[in-house]
Amino acid sequence: RIEPKPAAMLRRLLLRQARRRHCSSSFSSALPLSSPTFAVFGANTGVGKTLVSAGLAASLLRSHAASPSAVLYLKPLQTGFPADSDAGFLYRRVPALVRPSHAAHLVASIDTLSPAPSVETPSSSREEAAFSYDGEGKAVRKLLACRTLYAWREAVSPHLAAEREGMTVEDAHVRSLLAACLSEGENLGKGEGDVWKLVETAGGVASPGPSGTLQCDLYRHFRLPTILVGDGRLGGISGTLSAYETLLLRGYDVSAVILEDCGLSNDKFLLSYLRNRVPVLVLPPIPEDPSDDLTDWFSESSSVFGLLEDALRSFHLKRIQRLNSMQRKSKDLLWWPFTQHNLVPVDCVTVIDSRCGESFSAYKVKDNKMMMIPQFDACASWWTQGPDSKLQIELARDMGYAAARYGHVMFPENAHEPALRCAELLLGGIGKDWASRVYYSDNGSTAIEIALKMAFRKFSLDRGILLDSDKSITNERNIQLKVLALKGSYHGDTLGAMEAQAPSAYTSFLQQPWYSGRGLFLDPPTVFIRNGTCALSLPQSIQNCHLSPGDKCFPSLADVFCKSRDSSAAADLYSTYISQQLSEYSVSSNIEHIAALIIEPVIQGAGGMHMIDPLFQRVLVHECRDRKIPVIFDEVFTGFWRLGVESASELLGCLPDVACYAKLMTGGIVPLAATVTTEAVFEAFKSDSKLTALLHGHSYTAHAMGCSAAVKAIQWFRDPSTNSNLDFDRMKLKELWDGTLVNQLSSLPNVKRVVSLGTLCAIELQAEGSDAGYASLYARSLIQQLREEDDIYVRPLGNVIYLMCGPCTTRDVCTEQLSKVYHRISHFNPIH
Amino acid sequence: RIEPKPAAMLRRLLLRQARRRHCSSSFSSALPLSSPTFAVFGANTGVGKTLVSAGLAASLLRSHAASPSAVLYLKPLQTGFPADSDAGFLYRRVPALVRPSHAAHLVASIDTLSPAPSVETPSSSREEAAFSYDGEGKAVRKLLACRTLYAWREAVSPHLAAEREGMTVEDAHVRSLLAACLSEGENLGKGEGDVWKLVETAGGVASPGPSGTLQCDLYRHFRLPTILVGDGRLGGISGTLSAYETLLLRGYDVSAVILEDCGLSNDKFLLSYLRNRVPVLVLPPIPEDPSDDLTDWFSESSSVFGLLEDALRSFHLKRIQRLNSMQRKSKDLLWWPFTQHNLVPVDCVTVIDSRCGESFSAYKVKDNKMMMIPQFDACASWWTQGPDSKLQIELARDMGYAAARYGHVMFPENAHEPALRCAELLLGGIGKDWASRVYYSDNGSTAIEIALKMAFRKFSLDRGILLDSDKSITNERNIQLKVLALKGSYHGDTLGAMEAQAPSAYTSFLQQPWYSGRGLFLDPPTVFIRNGTCALSLPQSIQNCHLSPGDKCFPSLADVFCKSRDSSAAADLYSTYISQQLSEYSVSSNIEHIAALIIEPVIQGAGGMHMIDPLFQRVLVHECRDRKIPVIFDEVFTGFWRLGVESASELLGCLPDVACYAKLMTGGIVPLAATVTTEAVFEAFKSDSKLTALLHGHSYTAHAMGCSAAVKAIQWFRDPSTNSNLDFDRMKLKELWDGTLVNQLSSLPNVKRVVSLGTLCAIELQAEGSDAGYASLYARSLIQQLREEDDIYVRPLGNVIYLMCGPCTTRDVCTEQLSKVYHRISHFNPIH
Repeated sequence: RIEPKPAAMLRRLLLRQARRRHCSSSFSSALPLSSPTFAVFGANTGVGKTLVSAGLAASLLRSHAASPSAVLYLKPLQTGFPADSDAGFLYRRVPALVRPSHAAHLVASIDTLSPAPSVETPSSSREEAAFSYDGEGKAVRKLLACRTLYAWREAVSPHLAAEREGMTVEDAHVRSLLAACLSEGENLGKGEGDVWKLVETAGGVASPGPSGTLQCDLYRHFRLPTILVGDGRLGGISGTLSAYETLLLRGYDVSAVILEDCGLSNDKFLLSYLRNRVPVLVLPPIPEDPSDDLTDWFSESSSVFGLLEDALRSFHLKRIQRLNSMQRKSKDLLWWPFTQHNLVPVDCVTVIDSRCGESFSAYKVKDNKMMMIPQFDACASWWTQGPDSKLQIELARDMGYAAARYGHVMFPENAHEPALRCAELLLGGIGKDWASRVYYSDNGSTAIEIALKMAFRKFSLDRGILLDSDKSITNERNIQLKVLALKGSYHGDTLGAMEAQAPSAYTSFLQQPWYSGRGLFLDPPTVFIRNGTCALSLPQSIQNCHLSPGDKCFPSLADVFCKSRDSSAAADLYSTYISQQLSEYSVSSNIEHIAALIIEPVIQGAGGMHMIDPLFQRVLVHECRDRKIPVIFDEVFTGFWRLGVESASELLGCLPDVACYAKLMTGGIVPLAATVTTEAVFEAFKSDSKLTALLHGHSYTAHAMGCSAAVKAIQWFRDPSTNSNLDFDRMKLKELWDGTLVNQLSSLPNVKRVVSLGTLCAIELQAEGSDAGYASLYARSLIQQLREEDDIYVRPLGNVIYLMCGPCTTRDVCTEQLSKVYHRISHFNPIH
Repeated sequence: RIEPKPAAMLRRLLLRQARRRHCSSSFSSALPLSSPTFAVFGANTGVGKTLVSAGLAASLLRSHAASPSAVLYLKPLQTGFPADSDAGFLYRRVPALVRPSHAAHLVASIDTLSPAPSVETPSSSREEAAFSYDGEGKAVRKLLACRTLYAWREAVSPHLAAEREGMTVEDAHVRSLLAACLSEGENLGKGEGDVWKLVETAGGVASPGPSGTLQCDLYRHFRLPTILVGDGRLGGISGTLSAYETLLLRGYDVSAVILEDCGLSNDKFLLSYLRNRVPVLVLPPIPEDPSDDLTDWFSESSSVFGLLEDALRSFHLKRIQRLNSMQRKSKDLLWWPFTQHNLVPVDCVTVIDSRCGESFSAYKVKDNKMMMIPQFDACASWWTQGPDSKLQIELARDMGYAAARYGHVMFPENAHEPALRCAELLLGGIGKDWASRVYYSDNGSTAIEIALKMAFRKFSLDRGILLDSDKSITNERNIQLKVLALKGSYHGDTLGAMEAQAPSAYTSFLQQPWYSGRGLFLDPPTVFIRNGTCALSLPQSIQNCHLSPGDKCFPSLADVFCKSRDSSAAADLYSTYISQQLSEYSVSSNIEHIAALIIEPVIQGAGGMHMIDPLFQRVLVHECRDRKIPVIFDEVFTGFWRLGVESASELLGCLPDVACYAKLMTGGIVPLAATVTTEAVFEAFKSDSKLTALLHGHSYTAHAMGCSAAVKAIQWFRDPSTNSNLDFDRMKLKELWDGTLVNQLSSLPNVKRVVSLGTLCAIELQAEGSDAGYASLYARSLIQQLREEDDIYVRPLGNVIYLMCGPCTTRDVCTEQLSKVYHRISHFNPIH
């Protein structure tokens, strides 16, 4: 039994690093982009990945030009070691391949460099060679460095070798060491010319690594452009195309396919099939005689490797050019929502190359160096995100399957499996014990418009505004239906949704000249953490002389949600206030009816991340029930574990008649919304005429991909085997935001309040006048720092900044981000 | 050189059939579902597909139960024939495998059946065997039928063999013959027990067939549940998982994975990886000695094949149970848009199992037989559909890639490749020569709300309602902005979009109590075909005494679009009418302003598929331009080749300030919308304050999957190498609806008018009173017939029925559907 590589010391060092930085699926190493870096994947094992790496390295080093000045070859996982060592093969063979053709120019010989300071590797795995050319009167030094990162003795798949030899390695460690080596590799060239880097994977694209994670998944965080070594044998077309698709299903870009000619013309077919997608190159037949040292073969192949080099170079250049052009182009062509374009300098545009779980991969040029930098997506991409890196790949596969199986099929009068399965899961989950119907649409805003239509019809029927038998209208002209809602609420940007909210920055004449605000809007009491204490804040309109300090301060958030508060003085106060408001309103107008209550349960999102006293909302719901006013919960933001429970109605302790879901419902991958409701509401639309049916729909209603994503995500989040944050007995997420840190944050002098619940931690900065509110630019420098220095992608709501994670994000990741934010805010001093 | 099988006569017969029925990618054979049918795919070549087929067949036939009474084994493509014949192998070996273990019960011997009447195959490829059991005092007859459909001599991939032997076969013929054999196979059992059917593919999952089409694509139309024979060798985990993903990317359901034990425990890893997805079974090592007749191996394997049989049986039963439950469940759980649930009997619910190009695969029980029936999707799933079967698979792969690469990433202030590339294509295509900005949203309705906000801001600035410098409002309270629109128009179901349309069935108090209709709504003149003539119909409000017959009748549709009409009497008439209406309106109110024109160019869709006189719309646009009223084109329905050109503004001959796109933009796979506009409109939102920015957005704005789909679809439709309907020189689609048939239809006594343009052919039936209009059930029996008898999935707009195809649908397919419709309508006699 041999020690897996790297040596124990390094592993310990890495382990410590990993515990700190990579405890989750999130990944935080910046990748240099200045030099071309490629992953070498195989369509199968034994298709010649190492020969391709060697041939390519030789071709690169043979050049007399200053660039590349070095080639770094990395073999992260090697089995059959030391007898088999792909790094050793390159170390031994490449120098000989470089020399012969340039004998006249070659001066120096193989050399062993001292170990790079931060990556200590045992000598057996460090194998490097240096070349010098003395062509055109100018000495050019070239370097080849070959490294094995982890090795096992048995010549089997790494997962078996690791198991049998008792030497497993966590994925995070492999990635961490690989990232360090790639970063380190930049220095090999000593600033003179590019350093090409090749990472050769083990086995085929989907061969398991030591932990069982597939090769394609293990390295996905880097998303290196890929050389796919195809299979030239019988059946090799199929294997090559399947491997290609497996790479696509991980979001890789395949920059070239190269394969051996086995006399079956596989390359011709692949060339034609992959035309306009990927260049396909063919290598001469590889001699089968094991005693053949392949010198002739390499020589015969050198022109093909030259073409491969050209293809890769061109791929790399085009990629960099495109990345460099994207800031400018986006400024020129795009019109971003909610964005004052004058306030976005071209160099502040974030170029997002990809996403992996909770992090973007953002392209940046820092100190003249091009980098791909992982940024924690702290706004959860407008509150949609749930996937960790595993769920993302699961969803990607499901999206491909759903698109291939269904494309899109129309919905009315039809049934298809994803829509039906999703409905079953919704009604068995967030709709359990109350809902019986699912109405699909496209986004939160449309779900709300539908909910309002449902509530209005139900109300009109119950109140006799419509005659039940034929649903004709008694006296339409004199009737105006309004909503009861809370100030600061937000339900979407289409007019119908907007009419249900109180006036705000979003509703001005400038924004929507047709907005009038069709509702009675109440001032809600709010709850927040300040100076480490959980406190209730009453609006001026609610008298508070009867409340004791015990009614207004709480030892913990759990006490705020406690049902025993139903018999508190606060409950009486709320009930009186609400009754009074409703009475005053109905007296003042006899043609206006409050026909629906609409609230965001517990947290008002876009209004500034305010936590509304749940007792107030519960009393509100009961008052409306008593008056036969249908109750709508807008759970677009709060639903699906956003607040630590599947539905925020669990926190509130009461149920709606209609509830709206979107955002996280699909796990955060594709738009889909659902308006879920009771059978009683559904019945209000039944008759013998099509005209009484709910005539609201969108083209892609219940589209198969959206429903499939929802099916996967709903199950994933509810399952403790996939969601390790889930406390299955209580069907609640564990606390994700460190309580001590939250309290410390809330005690900072420049922090006004903190709200921490489920996946959300929001911080309102102290600000006055125009520094407060939606249009405030007060936090701008803080945001810049968090984005640029801390790699946290924050998008504020005026002077409110927030962190948001997914339901499966580990507490460690949350703590890391929250610590950074604490640090920044404690030093925050805005310059006006 | 041998003749490919089947024999020449059959091929000719099939060729004729195919020309009639399968000239396109659409596929119209019903598949029986009563008996289990499975496709056998291989992770690679040489992994033992035929051994698995043989073992499974033997296991099935060994049973003493009445069911299955027969096994039909089909090998559609055989190379190396006749030396290699997988059908021959089963024919020779299975009887021996069945007999030994049941010697006591076996009575009869191998038998050769007479050829089935409709499938004449040469004797060399028809190999059948019959068994009889005499167990439990009851004779049970069992039958094995083995067939090869097409064979080539060389033992290479079918695409090479076909090329080298000069014997190619079109995909449609392979599918057609296979469908006939599967259908025929039902009769083998003579009604006594199930007939299991196995279709063994050639090579690996992605090995090319004779035409070059991959195995997985060639058989996709059938979407048979699949047995994946995995690879037990080194690298086989990767190959098996990649093959599995390739099948998923075609929408296949893998019912079992079975592989040889090669001592590497590949099965253990696969079992763990595929847990809760697919059962994984492992077969004992296959003897390598070619002289081994495998008797012992089959005997050793029999328990595994028994398990495979159980797994498949369970898969089949569950599938059927689920399919049978779906009508009931969907009636119980779903709430369909635009549907009066009382009018949909449970047995009229269409259960859609999948889609392939232009057709659904619908599950039906007819005469007690369970069938999977392709239905032409004549409503293009609410006008979204563009993909043929090839584009669908392309899009599926792109969807998987985009989801894996990006998941979803938020858009404001960010750039990502799909959003940018899509914007480039939009501005270079439908926005060419006028547009410079793209604003993304989710659907047509949101795109319209955004367009209105853009137009209102521009108008307000131009008219001095807003002060340019700081965009503050001069006198908000006295200002009401309205739209100019046409009666019968439709722009979506959210309130803002709805306010821009004239009162209709969709806008009643019942549907939307908040609707008021904020516009001046004009009566438009329409154009249609009646009695083979293209005629103009003027509304009562437009005086027509000055128009000559030449102004009101047109030799062809092209003449209606002719620019020379700009100087006709009709143009004067229109101009006068519009000016007068606008003047009257502005006199009647000095607080209301017409702040936008919004029209559906050329065709009003949801309003009943009315073609508006393009001259009228052109005049309208010019009149608004003169008055600085911004012009919005709602191209949600008309855009992207729906009317035979990429943008309907090409037909109209004038350009908008703002245009909205959705539906077909993504090819019809996933929701996405774009509001495209000029730089002048964009500039109206610029200032130094966030409050003047356009504050409208949705969570998934510019989501990567939607934009990626749009990028693929826009390019696909514009490219003559992928869209064979495209007349590249004129950038127009060829005529898809047969002119003679259209004229004949328009001459039927019960047809009021026909509109045929691009991918649309609409027919209004003669109907009076309540039989006309949106709520009409007049065409109900006709619709039922088209759906049930003709396999055309039609969804009417009241008494208007229409056919809609994709931009790539062949004329032959269109003609076939139109002929069926002609036939039905000519015999249509509604019973009241």
